[in-house]
Amino acid sequence: MPTTDTVRAIEWRVDHLALLDQRLLPDEERWLRLTTVQEVAAAIRDMVVRGAPAIGITAAFGVVLAAHQHYAQTPGRWRDTIQDDLGLLLDARPTAVNLRWSVERMTGLLTDISTDPTQILLAEAQRIHAEDIAANLHMGELGSRLIAPGSGVLTHCNAGSLATGGYGTALGVIRSAWSEQCIDRVYADETRPWLQGSRLTAWELLRDGIPVQLVVEGAASALMAGGHIDWVIVGADRIAANGDIANKVGTCNLAIIARHFGVRTMVVAPLSTIDMACPSGKDIPIEMRAADEVLGFAGRSVAAQGATAWNPVFDITPAALVDVIVTERGVIQDPVKEKLIKLMR
Amino acid sequence: MPTTDTVRAIEWRVDHLALLDQRLLPDEERWLRLTTVQEVAAAIRDMVVRGAPAIGITAAFGVVLAAHQHYAQTPGRWRDTIQDDLGLLLDARPTAVNLRWSVERMTGLLTDISTDPTQILLAEAQRIHAEDIAANLHMGELGSRLIAPGSGVLTHCNAGSLATGGYGTALGVIRSAWSEQCIDRVYADETRPWLQGSRLTAWELLRDGIPVQLVVEGAASALMAGGHIDWVIVGADRIAANGDIANKVGTCNLAIIARHFGVRTMVVAPLSTIDMACPSGKDIPIEMRAADEVLGFAGRSVAAQGATAWNPVFDITPAALVDVIVTERGVIQDPVKEKLIKLMR
Repeated sequence: MPTTDTVRAIEWRVDHLALLDQRLLPDEERWLRLTTVQEVAAAIRDMVVRGAPAIGITAAFGVVLAAHQHYAQTPGRWRDTIQDDLGLLLDARPTAVNLRWSVERMTGLLTDISTDPTQILLAEAQRIHAEDIAANLHMGELGSRLIAPGSGVLTHCNAGSLATGGYGTALGVIRSAWSEQCIDRVYADETRPWLQGSRLTAWELLRDGIPVQLVVEGAASALMAGGHIDWVIVGADRIAANGDIANKVGTCNLAIIARHFGVRTMVVAPLSTIDMACPSGKDIPIEMRAADEVLGFAGRSVAAQGATAWNPVFDITPAALVDVIVTERGVIQDPVKEKLIKLMR
Repeated sequence: MPTTDTVRAIEWRVDHLALLDQRLLPDEERWLRLTTVQEVAAAIRDMVVRGAPAIGITAAFGVVLAAHQHYAQTPGRWRDTIQDDLGLLLDARPTAVNLRWSVERMTGLLTDISTDPTQILLAEAQRIHAEDIAANLHMGELGSRLIAPGSGVLTHCNAGSLATGGYGTALGVIRSAWSEQCIDRVYADETRPWLQGSRLTAWELLRDGIPVQLVVEGAASALMAGGHIDWVIVGADRIAANGDIANKVGTCNLAIIARHFGVRTMVVAPLSTIDMACPSGKDIPIEMRAADEVLGFAGRSVAAQGATAWNPVFDITPAALVDVIVTERGVIQDPVKEKLIKLMR
């Protein structure tokens, strides 16, 4: 059995949501106490919490807090007055579809609630959280079965415990395959500009005793040309109906380079990441963030004065470059629309 | 006529070599005064100066200082006593072949010198410097002829004035094509871990009034998928006899991704970069540098405690992924060994 005592970054504590502030890791482990939906939306927008599944879970607790607030203020009309706050949550970040999936799952319960909605919604949010962890554990097993002993893997960004309810998607597979002794070498892209790889992935893998070597994104070809890598393993922020993948900018680079060198690409994501309403990657909105993230490094400005930057947060990897999608309902090899339709039935 | 008044980073001043300390740019423009060959070797090793042609020119002045020192100390045996110091220069950095080319060109003169060698060697070093600038201006013209009006270009690392005697190789082509109004958009990789793109390329292009947008290395696919790029234009640290290119780590990534998207790759390098004694990229030594460069920036650590890093400075781009090599003697399309042999005759 894989271990489930990996770090968690989202916790419901009696009457509030506690989030581990991922902007401060690895230097400081500071938990933020959130008591309003406005604070939850801000935490998502400002990247206190990030990672598609983690954003979805956080938003579910945001709905709990919103319902609690509005029921207390306007018990007779709370289903109406809550709507603006639900919109606030939905608009917090545009690319991860798990956010919308989670808010819609929560709001689907509203019409049937006749009393104080807090406990009913809290139970549902906790179910979403627990299901995500269970899905990650199962995907970890499914994905690790594909990895032959002695393999080397390269991951990008952070698709770990911190990006999910716990255990992780891509890092769940890596954890599972490591515990099965299938993986000899774990490499992680540092992942500019936010350095999720250096700060978060390295931090949580090292806590679990899994050694990791960091590389700059530029080193992918050198790594693969040297025969160090058998699998690129990444998460996803949204998967379109045709199997195109939106994930951290740089993912498509890796998939193209992997294909060039005969290395395989595995995308690990729960069903909540799949958006059948989105025909292809072209239809996925790509968030642009401030140039400052690129012009500096860890808060320190480094670029020449007057330089500007182009800073898309995600890119689209065409399905044709993905060898395997691992979900909690099963594995899709060489994803195409028909296979996704069948999976989602 | 293209402008030649771009910034210079190498200057001989009466009795010493002055180097603009590139580790401090763009925050500070500090010139270092070097009076011994030991200081020159250290400046190359510690990246006060970097870029293959600039390293070669600096080493030539290092030979001048070495000869001056040894002739003053042991006028009858200076050709023997200088040998260790020449070795010191040759060993300063392993990948750029311009270093060896330059030192060998300088030492080729030693046997014919019967008096104080300083002035003769100084004249030769200054010729090497002047020839490099002239070569860059000519390559700028040759390369820019290949670029159709309205093009967008992406460059990597710094192959500019700062990396050469002046004007630059890849940035020389970009300067020339910009002045001919063939380029509409210049993008530059920030180029981790040393951030040559953000710190140096942006700095020198903006000084010349050429606007530049920085991107993280991960954004290459998003840029090219969006149709923003027509040419990837880079320099080289060594070109093997079969046309394989050693250049800043991440160059091979760009060439693979460019080929995927139908974008062309141009390598701009003087003849001194071509090493016909090196059969292929496999034979080019790749410098590894300290993990610290990846684990942080400018002395500030950001990665999780205990993380290690794999930090090759260069990678090898196979000739098959290069569309054009531009040298001062002409342009090679689709480089293969036979074409390089013909060029070097």
